[in-house]
Amino acid sequence: MKGKKPHIVIIGAGFAGIEVCKSLADLPIDISLLDKQNYHLFQPLLYQVASAALSPADIAYPIRTIFRRQENVRVYMGEVKEVDLGTKKVKLQDNESSFDYLVIAAGATHSYFGKEEWEHEAPGLKTVDDATEIRKRILAAFEEAEYEADEGSRKAKLTFIIVGGGPTGVELAGALKEIAADTIPFDFRNVDTSTARIILVHSGSRLLEAFSEQSSEAALRALRTMGVEVLLNSKVTDVDACGVMVGTERIPAQNIFWAAGVKAAPIASTLGVPVDRNGRIIVGPDLSLQGFPNVFAIGDIAAMTDTVTKKPVPGVAQGAIQAGAFVGKIIRSEVEGGVQKDRPGFTYFNKGNMATIGKAKAVAEIFGMRFTGPIAWCLWSVVHVLFLVGFRNRISVLLSWMWNYLISSRGARLITGKTELKVKEFARETNL
Amino acid sequence: MKGKKPHIVIIGAGFAGIEVCKSLADLPIDISLLDKQNYHLFQPLLYQVASAALSPADIAYPIRTIFRRQENVRVYMGEVKEVDLGTKKVKLQDNESSFDYLVIAAGATHSYFGKEEWEHEAPGLKTVDDATEIRKRILAAFEEAEYEADEGSRKAKLTFIIVGGGPTGVELAGALKEIAADTIPFDFRNVDTSTARIILVHSGSRLLEAFSEQSSEAALRALRTMGVEVLLNSKVTDVDACGVMVGTERIPAQNIFWAAGVKAAPIASTLGVPVDRNGRIIVGPDLSLQGFPNVFAIGDIAAMTDTVTKKPVPGVAQGAIQAGAFVGKIIRSEVEGGVQKDRPGFTYFNKGNMATIGKAKAVAEIFGMRFTGPIAWCLWSVVHVLFLVGFRNRISVLLSWMWNYLISSRGARLITGKTELKVKEFARETNL
Repeated sequence: MKGKKPHIVIIGAGFAGIEVCKSLADLPIDISLLDKQNYHLFQPLLYQVASAALSPADIAYPIRTIFRRQENVRVYMGEVKEVDLGTKKVKLQDNESSFDYLVIAAGATHSYFGKEEWEHEAPGLKTVDDATEIRKRILAAFEEAEYEADEGSRKAKLTFIIVGGGPTGVELAGALKEIAADTIPFDFRNVDTSTARIILVHSGSRLLEAFSEQSSEAALRALRTMGVEVLLNSKVTDVDACGVMVGTERIPAQNIFWAAGVKAAPIASTLGVPVDRNGRIIVGPDLSLQGFPNVFAIGDIAAMTDTVTKKPVPGVAQGAIQAGAFVGKIIRSEVEGGVQKDRPGFTYFNKGNMATIGKAKAVAEIFGMRFTGPIAWCLWSVVHVLFLVGFRNRISVLLSWMWNYLISSRGARLITGKTELKVKEFARETNL
Repeated sequence: MKGKKPHIVIIGAGFAGIEVCKSLADLPIDISLLDKQNYHLFQPLLYQVASAALSPADIAYPIRTIFRRQENVRVYMGEVKEVDLGTKKVKLQDNESSFDYLVIAAGATHSYFGKEEWEHEAPGLKTVDDATEIRKRILAAFEEAEYEADEGSRKAKLTFIIVGGGPTGVELAGALKEIAADTIPFDFRNVDTSTARIILVHSGSRLLEAFSEQSSEAALRALRTMGVEVLLNSKVTDVDACGVMVGTERIPAQNIFWAAGVKAAPIASTLGVPVDRNGRIIVGPDLSLQGFPNVFAIGDIAAMTDTVTKKPVPGVAQGAIQAGAFVGKIIRSEVEGGVQKDRPGFTYFNKGNMATIGKAKAVAEIFGMRFTGPIAWCLWSVVHVLFLVGFRNRISVLLSWMWNYLISSRGARLITGKTELKVKEFARETNL
């Protein structure tokens, strides 16, 4: 009997994969949910880990615990090495399994547009390890600047370049300015951290291009009021350990962070199916792969199109969640009622966009209404806390935000992992 | 004028170094406080990070922020490479400084009693990185056990050996049993995590040898009631990747943690002064080094003796704090009144000992009174929260403990850093 249950394999426990899995609860099927990590990560708040406001555990939740009570799910921590669409097999390191339905929701990684060698100097922000690495670089830069005798070097250590003016870039730039200007100035004796330059470089003509023009304008104003330097219509043409080239201008900087582009997770390119220029799997109206109706690709790994508007579905959490629910519904109806001839087409409903810039500064567009300032910031906070998995995480995040708001403190200013700073001057010999 | 201020260099921002520094507030001196990390770590709760109950940021606090308002302190993140006692110089990587007073409070590291090659298989617990490494190994062991087909291998993955029956070993053993029996059983489908063996191996005849015999007995009873296997009078004679030898018996185990011994930080052995068999600097009654009255060694790096009782001062937080205050007082009086001929001798006042074993299970001895069970556990909780640095940290830790107590949850179950698990079986082929 057991062998007769349909086997659904889901690759990736991000927003899309989790949603598919949840929507198949109580069905007499076997679900295998695979992820490289043992936790689901709430990526929209990852920049707050990078900027030392939250701990990784605040925005991560064990996948097993999410599905503790859903008995048809088995969770695997492991990396998929190969998918054979023809024989319907998914291969891990040491073994493999066949599937009846496969949902590929493995997400995206950074894209350097062919300059992958920039990654070491300009890390991106997709994983917990990325976030603690960026946190380390930010905090270590101030430590080094404190005892740097050479003025040019000190300035470079206090220059932070963020490449890319989407939500991650905007939010990281705002958070960095807050750290430098509000959180840590009194911790240092030699260096005035509030003089740190935060430079946001964006290739487009406006920030937050998925938002309305008014919101883009409001975000730009808010950032500039805070003192963030925003360069629009500006392309980074080179990156090295000592700075970046923006167009023909060289900006010396020790800290470069990449929020400019994403491409599909590597598994997408191994399937032998058509992908777009970002490596994303091209899917049909029902989000299945051409020629493989039982294989779906959703979330950031897929190039999904709204069936009605014909517009691409943006790579955001709500797109992934809606796609997950849509695919879950198809699988459920076919498990319950047999294979459908005419599957529905996916349509995306944009509930809104929001990005936070700083304390009581944000832009939000919800159901067509636009907000800025404290109201937008409250909306942003409420929505993000509500969508966090786990009640304890919600309390912990709220507490951290209150703290941050009231006394400009950031509770996770830890430099972890192997680090050796260069302390150039020491004690009596300096200008104290 | 600036050149005339006495320069006090303090190596290490643990309990001892922090206390010296605080006790010198408002003096017209220059203090340089050096530490390899940018944070002060509350080591007594480090096992709770290793056991996924707390996040690192909950028990770590930026050193700079502690001394934000104490203007005579300058904080350096860096590692001391050499101390030249003769010329009174402290050398970092790239530079050096002279000192008028030096306080060496660099702490301790694990000791494998000459078998340092065991460290990879049996990591100890002294730093944040140690704690996240141990956390990773614990959580990964259960992940691997879930899909391990071979019964012997599965049992080894579910066997946890803790070497050393002091407070760290006892507390880690209790926490591990709680994880296996209470926190995660419902997260797993194939494996019954409550069958995991937790084995505490102790070479002495009783646990917690610094405590009274009654407390040792109570701790032993509590651990055994929980299901922890405690082996007394037992020596680990070999350690490898597949298990340990305890005397002549081999115990197959994938998870081995070391809480058996400490030795002084490496800097102690480079000074050319007498050290004891654990590498600790032998100090005089005033905690200064023989022949170098302006150089003190305190805390875990020093072999300190109580001047009155002639007993060694135990390597615990209160010993370090009391020594720090004592040395601070000497330096203060000499800065204010000139060099003293007859310095006082250090005496240690033992306020008590406490160790927690599990939920509402602990032993505590305070000012000569003995407690066990829920009362001891409450005392333990109150004392540890009060001594944490930072109000936000206190709230966060209290919240985590309430959560843990009420619903047996542990909020930081993240496997971070590079990890590749061996998933031996996958989906349909197994016994679901």
